[in-house]
Amino acid sequence: MITVEEAKHIILENTQDFGIEEIPFLQAVGRVLKEDIVADRDFPPFNRVAMDGIAINHRFFEHGIRDFKIEGIQAAGSPQQTLDNAANCYEVMTGAVLPNNTDTVIRYEDVDINTLVATITIDEIKEGQNIHIQGSDKSEGTILIKKNTIISAAEIGVLATVGKATVKVAKQPKVMIVSTGDELVDVNENPLDHQIRRSNVYTLVSLLNDLKIQAETTHIADEKSVLKEKIESYLKEYDTLLFSGAVSKGKFDFLPEVLDELGVKKLFHRVSQRPGKPFWAGFTNNCNVFAFPGNPVSTFVNCLVYFYPWYYKSVAVSSEEKTAILVKDITFKPNLSCFLQVKLTSENGQVYATPIQGNGSGDLASLVEADGFIEFPKTEEVAFKKGSVFPIIKFR
Amino acid sequence: MITVEEAKHIILENTQDFGIEEIPFLQAVGRVLKEDIVADRDFPPFNRVAMDGIAINHRFFEHGIRDFKIEGIQAAGSPQQTLDNAANCYEVMTGAVLPNNTDTVIRYEDVDINTLVATITIDEIKEGQNIHIQGSDKSEGTILIKKNTIISAAEIGVLATVGKATVKVAKQPKVMIVSTGDELVDVNENPLDHQIRRSNVYTLVSLLNDLKIQAETTHIADEKSVLKEKIESYLKEYDTLLFSGAVSKGKFDFLPEVLDELGVKKLFHRVSQRPGKPFWAGFTNNCNVFAFPGNPVSTFVNCLVYFYPWYYKSVAVSSEEKTAILVKDITFKPNLSCFLQVKLTSENGQVYATPIQGNGSGDLASLVEADGFIEFPKTEEVAFKKGSVFPIIKFR
Repeated sequence: MITVEEAKHIILENTQDFGIEEIPFLQAVGRVLKEDIVADRDFPPFNRVAMDGIAINHRFFEHGIRDFKIEGIQAAGSPQQTLDNAANCYEVMTGAVLPNNTDTVIRYEDVDINTLVATITIDEIKEGQNIHIQGSDKSEGTILIKKNTIISAAEIGVLATVGKATVKVAKQPKVMIVSTGDELVDVNENPLDHQIRRSNVYTLVSLLNDLKIQAETTHIADEKSVLKEKIESYLKEYDTLLFSGAVSKGKFDFLPEVLDELGVKKLFHRVSQRPGKPFWAGFTNNCNVFAFPGNPVSTFVNCLVYFYPWYYKSVAVSSEEKTAILVKDITFKPNLSCFLQVKLTSENGQVYATPIQGNGSGDLASLVEADGFIEFPKTEEVAFKKGSVFPIIKFR
Repeated sequence: MITVEEAKHIILENTQDFGIEEIPFLQAVGRVLKEDIVADRDFPPFNRVAMDGIAINHRFFEHGIRDFKIEGIQAAGSPQQTLDNAANCYEVMTGAVLPNNTDTVIRYEDVDINTLVATITIDEIKEGQNIHIQGSDKSEGTILIKKNTIISAAEIGVLATVGKATVKVAKQPKVMIVSTGDELVDVNENPLDHQIRRSNVYTLVSLLNDLKIQAETTHIADEKSVLKEKIESYLKEYDTLLFSGAVSKGKFDFLPEVLDELGVKKLFHRVSQRPGKPFWAGFTNNCNVFAFPGNPVSTFVNCLVYFYPWYYKSVAVSSEEKTAILVKDITFKPNLSCFLQVKLTSENGQVYATPIQGNGSGDLASLVEADGFIEFPKTEEVAFKKGSVFPIIKFR
């Protein structure tokens, strides 16, 4: 049985290239940018007035002049005006081009205006003040957003500004999520005493939705021939298959056998972790297969621990490890990596992880109280101390 | 001029009730639950086999018996079987109902099986082991998810399990986002020298999208009569109006005046903060108005600082304050709250905030390097020390 680290390493060696597509920029939130975004002009593109007020020549102020005849108004959105007499002033609005022949802006708060003349009421003015100089943020040709950035509201603003009405992003994988298990009925059905409703596929849909992947779902009965026939066609049609269930030691856990018979190359089966041990992973030329154990917490953890980093590396996004401080002593079985659901809180710049009292890998209700999982390493020890720091994986 | 704290307080005193709607559960990710979700059965609903293996009566093992004749297989999804002879065993699969007349499950790894008989190969077995007892996670009638929870993948799993094919959530406000400013052209246009492209409305659309609010956008020219006519109809048609621009001291900043003439009750205008000072807020009987200053960073900050908490309180979601540790000394003007863009990093269970060298409230490109804002309080001091802890607002 391999370790979590080995399993992660193998998974990350087998990423996929989903290709690139061009989409309207406003639909690109959460997607991964696949082109550098370059300033099409200087930022700002002109010497931009940064305060409502008047624009003057500083040398006249320096020589003691306080009254400036108003020649006109330079509005935002109007072509640049020119101050005819350098001893006069222009009224100027935030966002406007600084008029020709002026070099300093004084805000209205520091000026008395009668219809024709503006009188400056303060004694200290810095030459060039309140002007957002052309190219001072970024100059034309500068890379504003690097390829492989996840697009958020901040990037959307920049894309709009440089006129990227459409933008190149990583295509998303075409994913099918398959549940197995004859005990399962659908959400809108009433289960008999020995049945339960399907939930893992919908949890997975939501987790993939957080990555902006629209996955399809289906259910296959625990019958080997049916399983084989359906998976054969899915392997051709999809980039990625996620399974939940049928990978353990049960009499009807046909999945590893079926995948093998269909020529899916096994990467590994079983990882020394709890929950989620019987995880099976493999690939064909065109498809990656993640077969997660059917217990709800196992499926949930394994999607976060393996599928998420695999997806991020496939689209060339680097993700940072996060850590938290354990708030109470925890003991568990030695020689297994352990993923425990935790509530995360922030205090004084620190992140604290409070373990949620769950009832094993079947207890999906306990996830509602959690924000993520804490990862305890595989060691000989069985006790982890309050105050120690461990990696965490957040899911909300 | 009021403080940020006063402005927040006033905004939060003027929340809105958007009502409730019922939607398909799988579309409810990110939405706010408006009903308690109750266990429709025990969790698990039967004594559930938790390992593939055999089920026996522990008392026979206790009396030294190791060989158990196999009576049959209890598959997941099959009605409960009964062990006829208490000295025999049943093969049982994970997820199956525990057969009648058995009380302990031994996993396949600890059993040798020939066709008819299972031989237990270990000497220590706990009575009742590997059984997930009916109701041990939650009993029927227990509240599994509380009203006013934001629905994530964890909640989706629970909703599926209890058969909530549709679920009651907070309706979203009908929002119109309006840009003003005659210098603005649209994303797919080529700006003239004195023009720039619209970006703030799209940034706001994305920020609201993160709250699962689908907002509409429009642009109104800096002409008072047009502004007034259009806003009059928007005030009737929408729950919330967000403006960007036309709230400062410029000659064409008609918005406060127009809103006043249209009977919008002003809550405040101008807050002692940087950026975002000229923020104007008001309301009518059916509509809340947030008029943000037009500089990109101002609009961005104010949406996070005011609209987000207002929305959360409107839908009865409590949000936790987050904090981070400042990594270098920062000085700025006294007597203003300051929101500074920061890059956040996690190390050793601590969150560090590195200020991003921005170029004022017009510099939207600097937001691309940031993950959030740090909030420095309004004080007489002008210096904040490296290592101090301050509130942060994350936007990615």
